[in-house]
Amino acid sequence: MYNFKYEVGTKIFFGRNQIVNIGKEIKMYSDKVLIVYGGGSIKKNGIFDATIEQLRINNIEYFELGGVDPNPRIESVREGAKICKEKGINAILAVGGGSSIDCAKAISAATKYDGDAWDIVINKKLIKNAIPVFSILTLAATGSEMNGNSVISDYKNNLKLGTRSPLLIPKASILDPEYTYSVPHKHTAAGTADIISHTFENYFTSEEGGYLQARMAEAILKTCFHYGPIACREPENYEARANLMWASSWAINGLISDGVANNWSVHPMEHELSAFYDVTHGEGLAILTPAWMRYVLNDKTVNKFVEYGTNVWGIDSSLDKFDIANTAIDMTQEFFTKELGIPSSLSELRIDNKYFDKMATQAVRGETIKGFIELTAEDVRKIYESCLL
Amino acid sequence: MYNFKYEVGTKIFFGRNQIVNIGKEIKMYSDKVLIVYGGGSIKKNGIFDATIEQLRINNIEYFELGGVDPNPRIESVREGAKICKEKGINAILAVGGGSSIDCAKAISAATKYDGDAWDIVINKKLIKNAIPVFSILTLAATGSEMNGNSVISDYKNNLKLGTRSPLLIPKASILDPEYTYSVPHKHTAAGTADIISHTFENYFTSEEGGYLQARMAEAILKTCFHYGPIACREPENYEARANLMWASSWAINGLISDGVANNWSVHPMEHELSAFYDVTHGEGLAILTPAWMRYVLNDKTVNKFVEYGTNVWGIDSSLDKFDIANTAIDMTQEFFTKELGIPSSLSELRIDNKYFDKMATQAVRGETIKGFIELTAEDVRKIYESCLL
Repeated sequence: MYNFKYEVGTKIFFGRNQIVNIGKEIKMYSDKVLIVYGGGSIKKNGIFDATIEQLRINNIEYFELGGVDPNPRIESVREGAKICKEKGINAILAVGGGSSIDCAKAISAATKYDGDAWDIVINKKLIKNAIPVFSILTLAATGSEMNGNSVISDYKNNLKLGTRSPLLIPKASILDPEYTYSVPHKHTAAGTADIISHTFENYFTSEEGGYLQARMAEAILKTCFHYGPIACREPENYEARANLMWASSWAINGLISDGVANNWSVHPMEHELSAFYDVTHGEGLAILTPAWMRYVLNDKTVNKFVEYGTNVWGIDSSLDKFDIANTAIDMTQEFFTKELGIPSSLSELRIDNKYFDKMATQAVRGETIKGFIELTAEDVRKIYESCLL
Repeated sequence: MYNFKYEVGTKIFFGRNQIVNIGKEIKMYSDKVLIVYGGGSIKKNGIFDATIEQLRINNIEYFELGGVDPNPRIESVREGAKICKEKGINAILAVGGGSSIDCAKAISAATKYDGDAWDIVINKKLIKNAIPVFSILTLAATGSEMNGNSVISDYKNNLKLGTRSPLLIPKASILDPEYTYSVPHKHTAAGTADIISHTFENYFTSEEGGYLQARMAEAILKTCFHYGPIACREPENYEARANLMWASSWAINGLISDGVANNWSVHPMEHELSAFYDVTHGEGLAILTPAWMRYVLNDKTVNKFVEYGTNVWGIDSSLDKFDIANTAIDMTQEFFTKELGIPSSLSELRIDNKYFDKMATQAVRGETIKGFIELTAEDVRKIYESCLL
């Protein structure tokens, strides 16, 4: 286990009707707030009105930035920062999923930065200050509600990049599982795949000695495998929505990664899919993950797959190691396709090999992906290719 | 899963030589600090000197309160608060295990309270303010390094009581596994038993739907069952010490309890043992736990024991439910006695039934223990009795 610093001070208000707490939390920092949201479903399902009511009770003036894309664009960040600077706003409230929260975080840093907002996306060291971010979560997926990460896209240049800073960690987040009842099957499935992928990225590591972190990761995986399909079938099952929502936060806030994780592998590959084709992030991850697993399985990595297969899927540990590993990978793929109903290949998303060379080059950023197993651009291209079948 | 608020902002610096971070963390709040410690082992093993060096580098003046007892006494709290008030000290640094940290927390609240310190122990609502607490951990056990709990004893009146407040959560804690290398077998074992007991108190609950929390609790239990005996046998095994240390923090900071836990059962019973006999807390817990488990096992609770036995101990789930439950309890008891070498009965600690009636009455506080299963004073007395065998 290597040295690390863990610090996640977000106040989480979890459960039914916890939105009543948001006003006083914001009021501690500001009398004005910018509300950041996506396609506007929150204006139909009542969450926007409920939010406004809390702001009114606390005498907080609000401004709006709607229309944030599923892969939030740098143009939205620039627009939000402009509003905050012009109006003297000192707090940002994201109401939505990871897209809105990621966008809010980038705005919070850009508001306190003099240059162009894209600078702080490509160089996290430029984030020296930020205005407080708050969130009301409506989708269990990215974990953005409880960490300092933000992923922003520049579609003009086919770029999707992540930045991070402790300054971007939300001060408070409202996690009301009922707010995810209206999430459709497709996005419930993709969100679950995203949580699972975050967990895999941390779990499949060459670092020894993170026994606690590995068991915690398995706890999250079991939760997703158990409740993901239930939430898809029964969208108003409170326990399913609650467990997935809480799992989303813990998969990517340091608990299962600090001290153990390598750099990530599948996310950099998927970010290129999203950058070139705007695919749903979780679907891209679900297609790439089993292909990546098959590609990196070898004598050196097999024991980690055995750990996964026996501990998470309950595969008989007396079987041959590679049989256990391959069965575990098969079960993972079947879970994504049969239990969650996610497409099993890039071909199903009408993606061909046209940009694979360019995407692979961009995924490794001129070097290699130094993850669980080091991947060259050629390795990445082969993994993309294997997803066409 | 019921509604909850989760908030743990402690900055954790985890790993070798992380003590270099303590000075600048304290300096953000104060130029003077009270160092709180126990029997003085830190002056022999170099940790005290290393601490002082960091304070000197950051120009922080220090005062000392040593001699804090394993069950910290209200007299120490009063003395510490007196020093802080007289010298105008605005930060407290505990260097030690849970005893020193608990004492430091009570001092931090008592310093900002005008009446007698015992008031804030018996009534947490009186804690309206507190000076910042920091810790350098030297024992994996109580989890006090990452929560707002404090347990203080008044031996003159045979009282041991817990108080809590978000204001008492340490601002920063140094978790260096090497600082626990010198912990002897007895206290390594008792500390492990303490972590396990915290986990059981949260895991054995009548609240439904906390699937994630239950799997997280099992992760902690597996870590303790795996690494506890290794740390006892090989005191300088870094991974064993690191995993136990990190497990101690997560067993009792809200992760596995929020949304699911009942009131605790075994701790209130053990607190009376400590109050009347000053036994080592973890040893008392290890003796009481299997007895409590056997006493509460019935048709209503058996499924939870089956969950425990199959998921944590890998017992064949096709066996009879009560066979699984009883085997799991037997394995738990054997773990404490054979793997950790903790006495198996109160008789071995030379405790007889002399005060059992009084202890039982005090444990239920004139009512009942409303935990996993509600326990009357008579129930508690019977559980004590069964620990004499």
